Amino acid sequence: MWRDIAPIGRSASSGGYFRQPWHSADLELRAWFRSAAASRGLEVEEDPFGNLVAWWDGTVGRRVAAEERGGVSRRGAVLTGSHLDSVLDGGAYDGPLGVVSSFAALDLMRDRGIEPTRRLGIAAFVEEEGSRFGLACLGSRLAVGATSWVDAQQLTDRDGVRLGDVVEGPTDGAGSALLEGVETYVELHVEQGRALIDRDAAVGVGSAIWPHGRWRYDIAGRADHAGTTRMEDRADPMLTYAMTALAANKQARLSGQRATFGRIDVRPNGTNAVPSHVTAWLDARAESSETLARLTAAIERQARERAERDGTTVAVTRESVSGEVAFDDVMRDALAARLGDAPVLPTQAGHDAGVLQAAGIASAMLFVRNPSGVSHSPEETAETADCLAGVEALAATLTGLVGR
Amino acid sequence: MWRDIAPIGRSASSGGYFRQPWHSADLELRAWFRSAAASRGLEVEEDPFGNLVAWWDGTVGRRVAAEERGGVSRRGAVLTGSHLDSVLDGGAYDGPLGVVSSFAALDLMRDRGIEPTRRLGIAAFVEEEGSRFGLACLGSRLAVGATSWVDAQQLTDRDGVRLGDVVEGPTDGAGSALLEGVETYVELHVEQGRALIDRDAAVGVGSAIWPHGRWRYDIAGRADHAGTTRMEDRADPMLTYAMTALAANKQARLSGQRATFGRIDVRPNGTNAVPSHVTAWLDARAESSETLARLTAAIERQARERAERDGTTVAVTRESVSGEVAFDDVMRDALAARLGDAPVLPTQAGHDAGVLQAAGIASAMLFVRNPSGVSHSPEETAETADCLAGVEALAATLTGLVGR
Repeated sequence: MWRDIAPIGRSASSGGYFRQPWHSADLELRAWFRSAAASRGLEVEEDPFGNLVAWWDGTVGRRVAAEERGGVSRRGAVLTGSHLDSVLDGGAYDGPLGVVSSFAALDLMRDRGIEPTRRLGIAAFVEEEGSRFGLACLGSRLAVGATSWVDAQQLTDRDGVRLGDVVEGPTDGAGSALLEGVETYVELHVEQGRALIDRDAAVGVGSAIWPHGRWRYDIAGRADHAGTTRMEDRADPMLTYAMTALAANKQARLSGQRATFGRIDVRPNGTNAVPSHVTAWLDARAESSETLARLTAAIERQARERAERDGTTVAVTRESVSGEVAFDDVMRDALAARLGDAPVLPTQAGHDAGVLQAAGIASAMLFVRNPSGVSHSPEETAETADCLAGVEALAATLTGLVGR
Repeated sequence: MWRDIAPIGRSASSGGYFRQPWHSADLELRAWFRSAAASRGLEVEEDPFGNLVAWWDGTVGRRVAAEERGGVSRRGAVLTGSHLDSVLDGGAYDGPLGVVSSFAALDLMRDRGIEPTRRLGIAAFVEEEGSRFGLACLGSRLAVGATSWVDAQQLTDRDGVRLGDVVEGPTDGAGSALLEGVETYVELHVEQGRALIDRDAAVGVGSAIWPHGRWRYDIAGRADHAGTTRMEDRADPMLTYAMTALAANKQARLSGQRATFGRIDVRPNGTNAVPSHVTAWLDARAESSETLARLTAAIERQARERAERDGTTVAVTRESVSGEVAFDDVMRDALAARLGDAPVLPTQAGHDAGVLQAAGIASAMLFVRNPSGVSHSPEETAETADCLAGVEALAATLTGLVGR
């Protein structure tokens, strides 16, 4: 499977991946998903937002009541999977590792003669990264109704294209029925930090997702000639931005949290013009909602203080904020025990599993060690032995959930 | 004339001008230039780079020796004019005021029955701002041979378009013959600072252009996930950039010079990714070449110190540097005296007049007061009375140079 998808959306210069939702690389991966499902006799369902699920129990309509099928349990369906999109110039594993491992785990379960007593599906949620339309976990949020289509269809990408123009959405005004009857979700993901390296473990179990969010800083000044305008006569928003980016880093470093300015848009962005506007996005994450609120308030305060000195103005817009999500504790403990006391760790990254857990679907996560310790980067990597350990752990987990 | 050109390339939202060289607004202005020349019976010459000159002495070929024309002096030609392009979202006057005032001054001289004893031309140099291909005064540099076509044709704009693909250039390998025989250049320009406001004068005379240049900072770090990567594990080039931008401002402020970071390009520029690369352009200007060298060295030193802390690397490329240009002192003193002891002031902006002066053409500049004190901005402005005083001053200057 890696051989098939490795070239899709890969940059020849950086080696990183550009798999932007609904662009060609993403569409190619979705076609690959359908063919991987078809070759295993799985039936693929797609919701009006583009989320995909390949059902093992493909011959039975998912709305058919479980009791009509005789010996099959009444318990709800089990879902595994992840996403296929990447950030701009991202790594190979963030997302696809969960999808590929799900297909591999299913192959392993079949080899071992497992007969599922519950429906089992492999999901590929769209736009998990939020790197095109700016809202992370967009697909899963739409699937569970955490974000409404009325709001979402107005989102625009960097080229001004509306989400409503690339996705048809539900024609009847209803949402997605894809997750109806799903009780449990297990998502395997490449680790994006260094905890498993430090603990010398191939696989870990997720405990919770840190609260996190995105804030847009619109800093307005006055365009001026970069040569003729005295420094003291300027109102330069770049200076306000620069101090804010440094303040964010310092505040997060001192408190053991995370704050990043990784995206900026400058107008007019000319070498010999003092800018009129700087728009920049703050990504902040903290171990609790209170800590996150303190962190972002401290950054905003320093931005406003600097703006007063620079003669600029700052408007801060909260684009999205997710509170803490603790994964299902029964599943978490069972997984850790089954994997021989695997490390249990929180993650600072948002995941579809967090959205599903918050929507009432008992969710768990498995992490596979990443020797680079780096993610959202071409350097992200994973060893084959660790990936196989991940598949084994996922197969064991799913067998426990759906096996007789 | 203002009524004709005011709508060309104007943004409905900001009110600023987008007159990028060889794009539609620029081409429209060039067509206007030709028709303004034609309606006055002036003959327009264009060189292979797109620089234009409208000659008053249109009926006589410019290579015809002056002596063949009887009473006409042997002295070389006199040029006036300016440029028509703008920065991104610039003002109405930077450039066009010089061209419009030149036509108006010629009208005034004819009304007054002036008969020129030397050829007089009105120039419109291309790409003065360097806002498309990155090299300021590109047209005049090519016209005097200060920049070679071999080098210039490789310049690319932000869309990757080569200059050689939009301009044919000289087919015979030779340069421009447009300025052959030109001895004197007078450029009128809107003031881009506050000196004439402070001195309560409508018109001033240029003394010199400060040394100035552009340096590209390529800062390389490591892309990382903005959530999962601990602050202390990062190599974030945005931080190195931010400190450098603040250092540039502080160094320039303390020494009374100018240093600006107005343009930045971030990769991958994603909200949830620590950037891998930041490229930013430093525009710096100082009263002497020594001061400029000290200023840029101090900024570079602070960038490298911060890079060491951030685990990033900094490569600094000198894209263009112009030494100090003092305008012709005889012309400068004569102009100031003729205008009733008009203020004599240096400018921190590059101008085609600086390029021509450096190439051995005796050059002078007139500045017209700008009540906003602001340029390279939609807020740039000029009062009609001051513009008329500028035309009067230019007509008097040109009459002194070409009249009997």
